[in-house]
Amino acid sequence: MADRVRISFSPNDREVRVPAGVSVFDAASWHGIAIDSTCGGHGTCRKCRVRIDGPVEVSTSDPRAFSSEELADGWRLACLARAEADLAVEVPPLVTRPKAAMVGVGRQVILRPAVQKRCVTLTEPSLADQQSDLERLLAALDDLEPTVDLLAVRNLPKALRDSGVDPDFTVTAVVVDDRLVDVEPGDTSGVRYGIAFDLGTTTVVATLLDLSTGTPAAVRSMLNRQQPFGADVITRISATMLDPSALDRLTALAHETLATLVREVCDEAGVDPLRVYEVALAGNATMTQLALGIDPEPLGVAPFVMSTRTLPRVLAADLGVPVHPGAPAYTFPALGAYVGGDIVAGMLASGMDRDKRLRLFVDVGTNCEIVLGDGQRLLATAAPAGPAFEGAAIRCGMRAAEGAVEVVKIDQASADHPVRLQVIGDVEPRGLCGSGLVDAVAELVAIGLLDSSGRLLAFDAAQEKFPRLADRLCEVAGERVFVLHWDGGEPAVYLSQRDVRELQFAKAAIATGWQLLVEELGVRESDIQQVLLAGSFGSYLSPANAVRIGLVPNISVLRIVSAGNVAGEGAKMALLSMRERAGARALLEEVRYVELSDRPDFNDRFIEQLAFPA
Amino acid sequence: MADRVRISFSPNDREVRVPAGVSVFDAASWHGIAIDSTCGGHGTCRKCRVRIDGPVEVSTSDPRAFSSEELADGWRLACLARAEADLAVEVPPLVTRPKAAMVGVGRQVILRPAVQKRCVTLTEPSLADQQSDLERLLAALDDLEPTVDLLAVRNLPKALRDSGVDPDFTVTAVVVDDRLVDVEPGDTSGVRYGIAFDLGTTTVVATLLDLSTGTPAAVRSMLNRQQPFGADVITRISATMLDPSALDRLTALAHETLATLVREVCDEAGVDPLRVYEVALAGNATMTQLALGIDPEPLGVAPFVMSTRTLPRVLAADLGVPVHPGAPAYTFPALGAYVGGDIVAGMLASGMDRDKRLRLFVDVGTNCEIVLGDGQRLLATAAPAGPAFEGAAIRCGMRAAEGAVEVVKIDQASADHPVRLQVIGDVEPRGLCGSGLVDAVAELVAIGLLDSSGRLLAFDAAQEKFPRLADRLCEVAGERVFVLHWDGGEPAVYLSQRDVRELQFAKAAIATGWQLLVEELGVRESDIQQVLLAGSFGSYLSPANAVRIGLVPNISVLRIVSAGNVAGEGAKMALLSMRERAGARALLEEVRYVELSDRPDFNDRFIEQLAFPA
Repeated sequence: MADRVRISFSPNDREVRVPAGVSVFDAASWHGIAIDSTCGGHGTCRKCRVRIDGPVEVSTSDPRAFSSEELADGWRLACLARAEADLAVEVPPLVTRPKAAMVGVGRQVILRPAVQKRCVTLTEPSLADQQSDLERLLAALDDLEPTVDLLAVRNLPKALRDSGVDPDFTVTAVVVDDRLVDVEPGDTSGVRYGIAFDLGTTTVVATLLDLSTGTPAAVRSMLNRQQPFGADVITRISATMLDPSALDRLTALAHETLATLVREVCDEAGVDPLRVYEVALAGNATMTQLALGIDPEPLGVAPFVMSTRTLPRVLAADLGVPVHPGAPAYTFPALGAYVGGDIVAGMLASGMDRDKRLRLFVDVGTNCEIVLGDGQRLLATAAPAGPAFEGAAIRCGMRAAEGAVEVVKIDQASADHPVRLQVIGDVEPRGLCGSGLVDAVAELVAIGLLDSSGRLLAFDAAQEKFPRLADRLCEVAGERVFVLHWDGGEPAVYLSQRDVRELQFAKAAIATGWQLLVEELGVRESDIQQVLLAGSFGSYLSPANAVRIGLVPNISVLRIVSAGNVAGEGAKMALLSMRERAGARALLEEVRYVELSDRPDFNDRFIEQLAFPA
Repeated sequence: MADRVRISFSPNDREVRVPAGVSVFDAASWHGIAIDSTCGGHGTCRKCRVRIDGPVEVSTSDPRAFSSEELADGWRLACLARAEADLAVEVPPLVTRPKAAMVGVGRQVILRPAVQKRCVTLTEPSLADQQSDLERLLAALDDLEPTVDLLAVRNLPKALRDSGVDPDFTVTAVVVDDRLVDVEPGDTSGVRYGIAFDLGTTTVVATLLDLSTGTPAAVRSMLNRQQPFGADVITRISATMLDPSALDRLTALAHETLATLVREVCDEAGVDPLRVYEVALAGNATMTQLALGIDPEPLGVAPFVMSTRTLPRVLAADLGVPVHPGAPAYTFPALGAYVGGDIVAGMLASGMDRDKRLRLFVDVGTNCEIVLGDGQRLLATAAPAGPAFEGAAIRCGMRAAEGAVEVVKIDQASADHPVRLQVIGDVEPRGLCGSGLVDAVAELVAIGLLDSSGRLLAFDAAQEKFPRLADRLCEVAGERVFVLHWDGGEPAVYLSQRDVRELQFAKAAIATGWQLLVEELGVRESDIQQVLLAGSFGSYLSPANAVRIGLVPNISVLRIVSAGNVAGEGAKMALLSMRERAGARALLEEVRYVELSDRPDFNDRFIEQLAFPA
């Protein structure tokens, strides 16, 4: 784990810890402390003046910004001052007020998008001044030194001369990160958009963001069109191994999904897709590789190897997305084959790298990603939970869609309704989704109709202890079940003995994962101050029942919170702030990945976790 | 003009002058002096050891390559040693023999192509070593730090695992400049090609080069398919101004032309176009902008402004060329709207920046580019010669194709053949090309049938002085002509009085151009030690007759040499050597462009030059 240094900012009186070597400017904006800047921290505007107490070298630009007395007094440009030791930093009052947006789990992000626009009016050329169009433009953007896209050169002559605006030679340069991607006639500096994608195995979400204000202009979601190739990443990887043409088709389906969402959000907000200059993508390693046409086979077979943790420069066009042709696609780096960019995005959005509390982050799914940390030390692992939580391999299992039982309450004191169900869409129950499964099992364990080993009580014993429920214990296709819903006297939705076993396997894998991280970090389960349940499953799960079956640590249910779609929030943060991207990159160094599959004690620990807590 | 420093190399005993700040390694390889290196001058292989007499700082890598005694003794890594003052450099005998090729006007180019290949065998991953494929590869390429193309990541997993070679995990990395563009299974390190394009307004030439040996594998040429839009750049620019769809069509035709040539050279040499990893393009500013889809209108109207002197990163795909999809296209920078990349390439190939003789470079065409320099000081200009030399605006004019009279000899002493013609293809004469036109005029001036003001003698005077030629003076369509060839008693190919005027205008424009450069440089016409005639026209022109009409300075015809297709040679040099590209870039700083069109004395000087030398 990287060494960290302490920086205290006044007058804000905030103390932060950052990896050694980070610039003071980055450390501040990363923690929501605003320092003046117009160049975006590129070391050219010389506005980010701060006075520093502590050892910081004089950069080559400092002498041009400060007198020698000021330098001796500790004044430095914050973007060039590297924090190599503990520092105290005095920040002068702001001249330009930076904008900020609230994103993620209560994270205030200071707007510093990669997409910048600059409107400039150039001097018209003459025989005495035959400077080329591009040199003329770049001279006017003197605080930026972008590399130049061919498209920008293509559009430049006409943008300058046929702008239809008065005066001629007024254009707006579109700079994304360090690239001049386009030049537009006239002043379009107020119009800049980005799209954040949460590319899930099941559901894909797109958020159109106004990058000038940080506010979402439209949000849409849809099922990933790759679904026909299988519900989870392993079946999709298998498809590419069985059929050489499947990779191309899966890539095309990912592109279709993303492109459809782009059209929908742009239509809804009335935004020209050509004014979308960047997209950000958070997805697991398999979804990301498939979307980019990279063979996922090595992800699916031991030793589970990614093509790359950090992807090279990718364009939105490489994702088949119909936005500005020069728009880059920011893709989150991944920690491992099963702790992908979606989790890195989620860690960013939930502040796992900054919050000083001991927190456990759990994203439940077929593959369950688990992170434990206290803002200084971070451990991550992936547990193979299997598809139970997604309703697969469960007799009456289904996805969380209309007709799915999502809440189960059992009250044997109630004569009329000892079993009450909450159904998505308030329709006739059709099956059981993950949260309903957890509820059903937890409620049965709570009353004792399921014992702690996971066995349904025998009928005779049940009839004695649970007279109002016992007739729900019957056999379907030779297997013992507990009926949740009847249809015409026949069991319609029920929990089978084997379903309980499936849930036990799933929860045992997850619990083994976080317990090993607790041990690796040298803390106790009871020290955990917060459990963050990520993803949509986390939103529906009952914290009390998650504790009851041992899925999460046994702490106060008030400390178990749903974090929502943190992957999508992380993608929004990446669009809004270059600093947050630096934070994502830093996570690669800061998080230690713990591989479960080669631990000799994993199986023993797993078996210990199969039982429900007493 | 940049300051230059002197470096003397021993044991070669060569002294060179280079811009201050150039590395010793570059200075040497630029002048054909070989210094050991395997990393290609990237400062990593530490093989380019030299001992330097003179002030050169110790770089950060030097202490890792040399003992402190060696450092004190002047040993340095040549690629990191900047020549800021005059130096004496001792070069140890070579361990690895670099390859070189002869290109251009007797230029020895040490092979250092941008295209590099590295074959590596990687350790297979395991659960204990889950490093990603890309990280594993990059670690094995430790002396390179390329940025990575998405295509390389796409091809990497399969190249490593399905290589069909033994052992697995043996791949060849294709690195072009600083980009990893592909990864190929097995060892393909011996196979790398590039294509050099000379994109002329009339003719386009492609040379397929084996980059491992520097030898051409195939050469093809064809007419530019843009011809239907006009013979010269101005008519093509006009076409784009009259019809908004013309730019797209001209771009498509340029792509068609280049793509056809690519297929032809690859077919001829039996080379897979996917093994062509880079192309280089030399063309005038208009041809280059049209090929890249950049509006050329500002080139065609005052104040004659280019979109950019140095193009951004361009791919071969942007030129519509079917080679490796990641192949970059190197495009020569341009000095001005009318001294384009073709001339910069030509200057490179003819060593205008290095040869210490006072030399005049003339590329005759509708637009005539002229460069004068002595290797230290360089001046360039463009003269609007008009289309006479290309046979346009000439009564019997035609391009240098079959049936064109290319040589005219007049010998009034010969009774049988006072006028002898050499015809391209040895067929019946059909018309007069540029060199034939110059010959006809020069021969008539030499004998006095044309006076120095350019007037054909009156019939009576001619009959008296030139009895064997006088009957060739007659009238066609009301204009006086000199008949070169009869067909059935009718004048078939002839020179008209107006043709002579056209030639006078053309040669006056050119002569005014170089005379002004001679004055600007403060030298005399007779000081010029060599005249280089560039382009195909230069190959056919009779030096004696060029002097006789005043097209070139009046120096010994032995000093007037045809330089051939120097633009194409320059493009080959750029493919073979990164250093030569640096030389092209340096020319932008070293050459001063002299604009003729805003000189108040241009018209007077032009009129003075209309007469033929006495």
